[in-house]
Amino acid sequence: MNDSCWEDASDLLTPNSLAKQRWQSLASNLRSHRIQKQTIHGATVLDFGVQVKGSLEAGVALAEGCMGGLANVQVVPQSDPALVAANAVTVNVDLPLLSCLGCQYAGWPVSHEKYFAMGSGPMRLLRGKEDVLQEYQLADVPRCAEVAGVLESDHLPTDQIIELIAADCQVRPDQLTLAVAPSTSIAGTVQVVARSVETAMHKLHDLKFDLNTVVSGSAIAPLPPPAKPGDSVAGIGRTNDAMLYGATVTLWVDCSDDAIESVFQQMPSCSSKDYGQPFAKIFADYKYDFYQVDPALFSPAVVHFHNLATGKTFSAGKLNPAVMRASFGMGS
Amino acid sequence: MNDSCWEDASDLLTPNSLAKQRWQSLASNLRSHRIQKQTIHGATVLDFGVQVKGSLEAGVALAEGCMGGLANVQVVPQSDPALVAANAVTVNVDLPLLSCLGCQYAGWPVSHEKYFAMGSGPMRLLRGKEDVLQEYQLADVPRCAEVAGVLESDHLPTDQIIELIAADCQVRPDQLTLAVAPSTSIAGTVQVVARSVETAMHKLHDLKFDLNTVVSGSAIAPLPPPAKPGDSVAGIGRTNDAMLYGATVTLWVDCSDDAIESVFQQMPSCSSKDYGQPFAKIFADYKYDFYQVDPALFSPAVVHFHNLATGKTFSAGKLNPAVMRASFGMGS
Amino acid sequence: MNDSCWEDASDLLTPNSLAKQRWQSLASNLRSHRIQKQTIHGATVLDFGVQVKGSLEAGVALAEGCMGGLANVQVVPQSDPALVAANAVTVNVDLPLLSCLGCQYAGWPVSHEKYFAMGSGPMRLLRGKEDVLQEYQLADVPRCAEVAGVLESDHLPTDQIIELIAADCQVRPDQLTLAVAPSTSIAGTVQVVARSVETAMHKLHDLKFDLNTVVSGSAIAPLPPPAKPGDSVAGIGRTNDAMLYGATVTLWVDCSDDAIESVFQQMPSCSSKDYGQPFAKIFADYKYDFYQVDPALFSPAVVHFHNLATGKTFSAGKLNPAVMRASFGMGS
Repeated sequence: MNDSCWEDASDLLTPNSLAKQRWQSLASNLRSHRIQKQTIHGATVLDFGVQVKGSLEAGVALAEGCMGGLANVQVVPQSDPALVAANAVTVNVDLPLLSCLGCQYAGWPVSHEKYFAMGSGPMRLLRGKEDVLQEYQLADVPRCAEVAGVLESDHLPTDQIIELIAADCQVRPDQLTLAVAPSTSIAGTVQVVARSVETAMHKLHDLKFDLNTVVSGSAIAPLPPPAKPGDSVAGIGRTNDAMLYGATVTLWVDCSDDAIESVFQQMPSCSSKDYGQPFAKIFADYKYDFYQVDPALFSPAVVHFHNLATGKTFSAGKLNPAVMRASFGMGS
Repeated sequence: MNDSCWEDASDLLTPNSLAKQRWQSLASNLRSHRIQKQTIHGATVLDFGVQVKGSLEAGVALAEGCMGGLANVQVVPQSDPALVAANAVTVNVDLPLLSCLGCQYAGWPVSHEKYFAMGSGPMRLLRGKEDVLQEYQLADVPRCAEVAGVLESDHLPTDQIIELIAADCQVRPDQLTLAVAPSTSIAGTVQVVARSVETAMHKLHDLKFDLNTVVSGSAIAPLPPPAKPGDSVAGIGRTNDAMLYGATVTLWVDCSDDAIESVFQQMPSCSSKDYGQPFAKIFADYKYDFYQVDPALFSPAVVHFHNLATGKTFSAGKLNPAVMRASFGMGS
Repeated sequence: MNDSCWEDASDLLTPNSLAKQRWQSLASNLRSHRIQKQTIHGATVLDFGVQVKGSLEAGVALAEGCMGGLANVQVVPQSDPALVAANAVTVNVDLPLLSCLGCQYAGWPVSHEKYFAMGSGPMRLLRGKEDVLQEYQLADVPRCAEVAGVLESDHLPTDQIIELIAADCQVRPDQLTLAVAPSTSIAGTVQVVARSVETAMHKLHDLKFDLNTVVSGSAIAPLPPPAKPGDSVAGIGRTNDAMLYGATVTLWVDCSDDAIESVFQQMPSCSSKDYGQPFAKIFADYKYDFYQVDPALFSPAVVHFHNLATGKTFSAGKLNPAVMRASFGMGS
């Protein structure tokens, strides 16, 4: 038996290099996925939906790369009327802390002059500034020669944005690969709706749950129709509603039942005082001041915990098709 | 960063070469997929169900090759009783005009003496004779050295059929790869039921919709039990009923709402005067004269349009499990 | 055309080597799948859940390897309330006799002193002692240089167990690759619930059906929450209940309708006198004497036969969500 078959390359395969590899898997036929590659200020910029239309398959690759190449995302036709849309985005992830909070969480607002993007993806590990990254010691080993990130934005990054990201990650611009998509594009919609397990992980963090005890996650959420280009409130509204009113997340955890019992009923969005209206309306009612919205709202609709330590299951929440129908504009 | 990682090979990856690659991906273990390869008059002929039984996996490969390697097809177990069958065929496609009408549409009746097959697949691009191919300038660049096509037939092609196809595509027989399956075989059934988005695209074309504005498609249709070998009316009946009464197609389009409003209610099969009976019965009532059947019948059961330009969704149609139960013989 | 592209390697690709290849596909990043590799007495032992937690993806690989690399297994989120759990395991298999009974069936109780494991996977083909392997002449060609097997056990194998397996397979220990997972681990649960088509094949064998006439199979069963570690009765109970009360299996067969008619109503679990209680309770009622349980109970909940020879479908059985809710502890 040739033992080299079993060489474990884990040390080489960081989330940043895995993300880049995932995007390169499309490279043999970028045009058929409607992705455009260009070099901006030395960085490789992959346009998944700004100057091109993008695609469903590009959205899946965008989401998987955003999760550091450590998750399985699918766009599937689905026939449960409670999910309202005819398609859903499924996610399976076996390292949810690293993949969802270390990589996928959109915790880096990237801005300079008029440019703004929500930054996510494994590049955040190298910047390492966010509390959750420090609390859980998620920062990547800095020798990483390749950096991959996602910018949710209606515009490709400027030279200054590239400089800023490279400086924050302590790499040269030519070590950067950035994937860009508006939230109203096909790929952008898929990418945002793939944040179902991440939304649950983030809420768990708010509830002071020990995230190291979350072993695996699997989730489904409806894929809403993309909002009108430029109408970012509608874009945010529909994708948030897909989470708040449509996502079902299952987590395999390994902890005491007490630890779960102290959080599980607060986990679903229906535990929030702001629950019950389309997100765009809630947002408008607060005069578009994001920080007025009850943070407890940002949760999946339904959460199941399977406790590996005890064999018990805890479930809370419910789907809300009526709100999704109003939000998605799916007709009568 | 090694820029060659990002080399775009789109020019080399024509639908014909992608289809051949897809089928070659099975080549390492043809026997386990119950596919047989032979050379007929110099051409490579892959038997997916004539002298061998074929398989589900072969059907998926047949369908994806038929779509020029530009789509994702799956056979999935499903539990919606409205779909009647216990399995469904899903399709995601990001270049529906090229993949569905350029490649997949069975628009080439291939016949010589007693032999007859419905011809489909990317080889049609090289022949380039059909109106839709000319209207949308879909014909492949003729320097293409490999040609791949699908023959829906109960028989392997004769030498003369090979000659005829090669001549029409302007290549030598040894440049041809042909995949053959009867509509009553496992692989043939999968392949035909994978025509859900194609059926919608074809109907849109009949309705004079601008097909360049269709960006992506995703669909699900029930996989009916294969009909009795040789009973091609039952074979056509069941697979058509899976479309007419069971397919749900979602299209992402980029056009004016007016363009959609002028067609969407005519899109589903229920807009046809012939709607409501199993196709085999309709066909019999017209004394098996295909041209008597209302062309408007050939449509999915349900169609959704997501308009990327406006964020609006338009939906029409309904599933009809009663007709499918009668057609599929799925018992009480 | 380069004919070497089509070289059929079937002779080289035995179920044993395909299984090893499948597991090696994870090797580039064993750590991210929470699989651990070690050498025990010369054999390669892959720990999918004993000293490590394992993962969903590891479970899929474990199941596909157990089936000799000849099947497609997926863990999918699902929303049919009749399946009780939020996830399901789907299986598509095109060589069910070889893959399910030749490889997957847990027909080899491996024990020595205090160690016990249910042995399954393609290594059984080389041992060749079980009746079904002999009846259907499934034993692998013995020149096979690699042997792959699965041990369902709470413990890694001892040196003596390695010796015993190697001797029974007539290979050296260093030719063995063994994957180990407890039935209460994530991967172990996935692997056991992937036995839906196998359970149908085994029942068919008990009913004296000619298994050579079964062409393909496709199935779905709910993925129950893993039971408490060490509570093997609960582990066996939940995974069995996922089969008996939750699995729907579709078989494409090629035989006379009479052959199906003589068995199909006895196929589902509800034909058994022991049907109707959670398996753990039935087992307890028989004082944990496995051989007292009615063998007819070990069947999927629902079975469909599509007869390729006649186009007819035969279905029997029903889902039983009430029993699964009691068994899985999924709350109210």
